[in-house]
Amino acid sequence: MRLSRYFLPLLRDTPKEAEIVSHRLMLRAGMIRQQSAGIYSWLPLGLRVLDKISRIVREEQNRSGAIEILMPTIQSADLWRESGRYDAYGKEMLRIKDRHDREMLYGPTNEEMVTDIFRSYVKSYKDLPLNLYHIQWKFRDEVRPRFGVMRGREFLMKDAYSFDIDQASARHAYNRMFTAYLRTFARLGLKAIPMRADTGPIGGDLSHEFIVLASTGESQVFCHKDYLDFETPAIDTDFDSVDGLQRLVDNWTSLYAATEEMHEAADFDAIPADKQLSARGIEVGHIFYFGTKYSEPMGATVTGPDGTLSPVHMGSYGIGPSRLVAALIEASHDESGIIWPDEIAPFDIAVLNLKAGDAATDGACEQLYKTLLARGYDALYDDTDTRPGGKFATADLIGAPWQIIVGPKGLAEGKVEIKRRAGGERELVSLEAALDRFKGKTA
Amino acid sequence: MRLSRYFLPLLRDTPKEAEIVSHRLMLRAGMIRQQSAGIYSWLPLGLRVLDKISRIVREEQNRSGAIEILMPTIQSADLWRESGRYDAYGKEMLRIKDRHDREMLYGPTNEEMVTDIFRSYVKSYKDLPLNLYHIQWKFRDEVRPRFGVMRGREFLMKDAYSFDIDQASARHAYNRMFTAYLRTFARLGLKAIPMRADTGPIGGDLSHEFIVLASTGESQVFCHKDYLDFETPAIDTDFDSVDGLQRLVDNWTSLYAATEEMHEAADFDAIPADKQLSARGIEVGHIFYFGTKYSEPMGATVTGPDGTLSPVHMGSYGIGPSRLVAALIEASHDESGIIWPDEIAPFDIAVLNLKAGDAATDGACEQLYKTLLARGYDALYDDTDTRPGGKFATADLIGAPWQIIVGPKGLAEGKVEIKRRAGGERELVSLEAALDRFKGKTA
Repeated sequence: MRLSRYFLPLLRDTPKEAEIVSHRLMLRAGMIRQQSAGIYSWLPLGLRVLDKISRIVREEQNRSGAIEILMPTIQSADLWRESGRYDAYGKEMLRIKDRHDREMLYGPTNEEMVTDIFRSYVKSYKDLPLNLYHIQWKFRDEVRPRFGVMRGREFLMKDAYSFDIDQASARHAYNRMFTAYLRTFARLGLKAIPMRADTGPIGGDLSHEFIVLASTGESQVFCHKDYLDFETPAIDTDFDSVDGLQRLVDNWTSLYAATEEMHEAADFDAIPADKQLSARGIEVGHIFYFGTKYSEPMGATVTGPDGTLSPVHMGSYGIGPSRLVAALIEASHDESGIIWPDEIAPFDIAVLNLKAGDAATDGACEQLYKTLLARGYDALYDDTDTRPGGKFATADLIGAPWQIIVGPKGLAEGKVEIKRRAGGERELVSLEAALDRFKGKTA
Repeated sequence: MRLSRYFLPLLRDTPKEAEIVSHRLMLRAGMIRQQSAGIYSWLPLGLRVLDKISRIVREEQNRSGAIEILMPTIQSADLWRESGRYDAYGKEMLRIKDRHDREMLYGPTNEEMVTDIFRSYVKSYKDLPLNLYHIQWKFRDEVRPRFGVMRGREFLMKDAYSFDIDQASARHAYNRMFTAYLRTFARLGLKAIPMRADTGPIGGDLSHEFIVLASTGESQVFCHKDYLDFETPAIDTDFDSVDGLQRLVDNWTSLYAATEEMHEAADFDAIPADKQLSARGIEVGHIFYFGTKYSEPMGATVTGPDGTLSPVHMGSYGIGPSRLVAALIEASHDESGIIWPDEIAPFDIAVLNLKAGDAATDGACEQLYKTLLARGYDALYDDTDTRPGGKFATADLIGAPWQIIVGPKGLAEGKVEIKRRAGGERELVSLEAALDRFKGKTA
C-alpha cells in the first residue's frame, strides 16, 4: 500500500478520553474511531489487525474440528424466554421492538440460538460430536463503556458451541477447545495462562479463563511462575486422541492459577515464594462446560445408542478478536508506539522514502516495494513528502515489525537501513542484501 | 472436508414457505435457516459461498483503489437527524433505545456515518480522491420479508463511498466503481447489465443498477441484446486513466438498457426488433452519484487548491453478497439442484465413495481426497454409509462443479468416474488420470 493513497488518519495529540495505553495508541495510530459510547468504526489500519486475528482464530478452530456458521445479530426474545435468560439478563441486553411490535434483541451471546439450530436438525448420537462456531458482532449495553475496544458495547466475538452425547465426550470437546485456545494465543504472540474461573451468567461447573499478563490488566491474577515456560501444543496435535488431550490439559492445569474471584490464598501461599506470580491480567478467552443447562429447557435431545432420548451436553467457548487487538497492544508497546507481533502486524514492512521526488530514492523504493509485494508481504510504502522525522515517528507508531529506510546519503553509497521495530536494532546493508532478508512470506 | 464430520443438514421435503427456487434450494441444501421473519443463520455450506462472494467483491474493490474499513451496525439517531433522513426513512429503519434512553438505530446504510468519519479527518483536496468501503450487516425492517435471503431484513452489504473535490473527479470515481462492478459480476459467473435507474431514498442524479437476467427475476427490464456479448474489463484495466474509464463506461452505456421505472417505450421500440430484449431481472448492484447531498448539511468540506472551502462530492455504491447467493442460484440451477460457477462453489470437487468400509474404495478415495486438499482444492469427501442414490442426489443438490465417483466395480477395472455437474457429462478414467485433471487450483 502506498501511504499517499491510503487512509491513515493519525492524531497528533493524545486524546483525553483514553485512559489506557491501547486506547490512546489505537486512536493516535488511526486504527479506530468512536461513533457512540462504546461503539467504534474500524479504520483501515485497525481492520487489518482485526482481520488477521480473526483468521488465526478461524484456522485454529477449524484445525480442532469445529465448523464455522454465521448466526444473525438480531434474535427473537421468545428464544431467550425458553431458557429463562430473557428476564435474567438485565439491562446489558439491548432490547428492540420491530415494526410489528415483536420483541427482539441484539445478541450478547448465542447459546439459545445455536441450541435452536441444533434441535432442528440433529436427532441422533451418530451425528455427534459437533462443534459449531461463528465470528460475529455482539452487543452488550454496558452501563459505562470504557477502555476503547477493550470494553466496548458492540464487539466482535468468536463463540463456539459443543454438543456431545454424555459428560465424558463433552469433556473431550472441552479439551479440544482448551488446546485450540493455547495454540491460538501462542500464534498471536501472546503468553496466555488458563485459570480456573467463575462461570457467571453462562452457568455450568467447569470453566477456564485465558489470561494475558500485562501491567495495565483489568484484574489481579495469581499463578505458578512455571506456566510462563510451558510449551504450546504442537501443530500436529491429534485432536481425536481422548487420552492425549486429557494429559495435555491435565498438565496445563496442574499448577496453581486463579483469577481474583477464584483465588485461594492458602493454596497460593503453598507455592515456593520464588515461584509465586501475582500480576495484573487481561481476559482474552473464556471456556465453559455447562452440561444440559440449555438443552433441557429447550428440548434439544438426542437418541443414544440404546435408543433412549436424553438432553445433549453442551459447552461454549469465547474469544473476542476486537478486544484482543487492544490486549495485544497492552502487552507489546513502548513510548514510541505499537510493537506488533509478526503474525498479526497490519503491515509486515514499512519502506520509508526519506526524499520523495528524488529519482534515486524513488527508484530504489519502488524496486523494494514492488519486490516485497510480489513476495507476498504486506508492505507499506511511505511515498509522501513528509519530512524524515515525521516518517520515523509514523512508522514507529503504527508498529510494522520491520522498516527499510531509504535516504539519498546512504543510497549514494549503495546502502539502505533496516530497522527492527521491537529492539530498535539498525543495520546498513546494500539494496540487494535488504531484499535477501525478505525472501518470501511463509505465513 | 469429510461429510461424516461436517454439518450439512439437508431437508428431504420442499419447504412450503419458500416461493422461489433459490429459497427452496438454499433450505433443502442446508445453506440457511430462518431464525425470525427475514433473519437467517448461515449454515456451513451457505457461509462458504457467502465468504467466497465477499472475497471476490473485496478483491475488486481493492483493485479499483477503494480502501476497506468497518463501521458498526448500531448508529446514533443524531447523525441521521443531521442529514434529515431520520424522520424521512420511515418504518424500514429499526429504531432502538439503549439503557440510557439514547435513540439509536440499526444501520440500513452508511452515508451519514461515513460522512462523519470523513469530516473528522479530511480537510484538504490533497487527501482526495478517497473511496472507503465496508462489508457489514445491515437491517431494513421490511413490512413483508420474503424470498429468503433475496429480500431479508438482516442482510450483508458491501457499501462504498467516494469523496472528490469536484463533479469531474466524482465522475471518475463513479466510473471506477462502474468498472469494478462489471469485473466483480463477471468473476462471479454472472452476466450483469448496467441499467439507468431511479435513485430512490439515496438521492442524486446519476445512478445505475446492475441487473442479472433470470426468469424468476423480481422486475421487468428492457435492453439491447448486444449487451450479452459485451466484454468484461480486463484485469489490468488502468483505474487511474480518466479517459480510458470514461470510454469504457460510455461504451457500456451506449445502448438502451432500463429498469421498469426508467423505461421509455419509444426508445426501446427504436431498437431493431431482433435486438430487443425484454426479460425478468434481479438487481445485484446499485451505484449513485449524489454530489453534496450529505456533505452540505453535515459540513463535510475540503479546502481546494485555491484555498476556498467547499462541500465534498460524494457517491455511494452497493453490492449485497447475501442477496447474490440467491441471485446466483436463480441464474444457475436445474431440477436436481444448484449448479455453482467454479469461482464461488462451496466445494470445488465432491469425492463420492459408493461403498464406504470397502478397503479398495476407501483407499482410492482417501488418496484422491488428500491429494486434492494438498493441491489447494476445497474437496468434500462423502465418506458416509448412505446408499449410492442418496450420494448422487446430495452431490447434485449442493452443486459442486465436479464429482469424482468411486465404486467397487469401476475400481476393479482401475477406473473412477468424473462427472461435470453443469452439463452432466461423465467419463471413466484411471485414478491417475482423474488426479491429472486437477493439478492445482489457480484461483
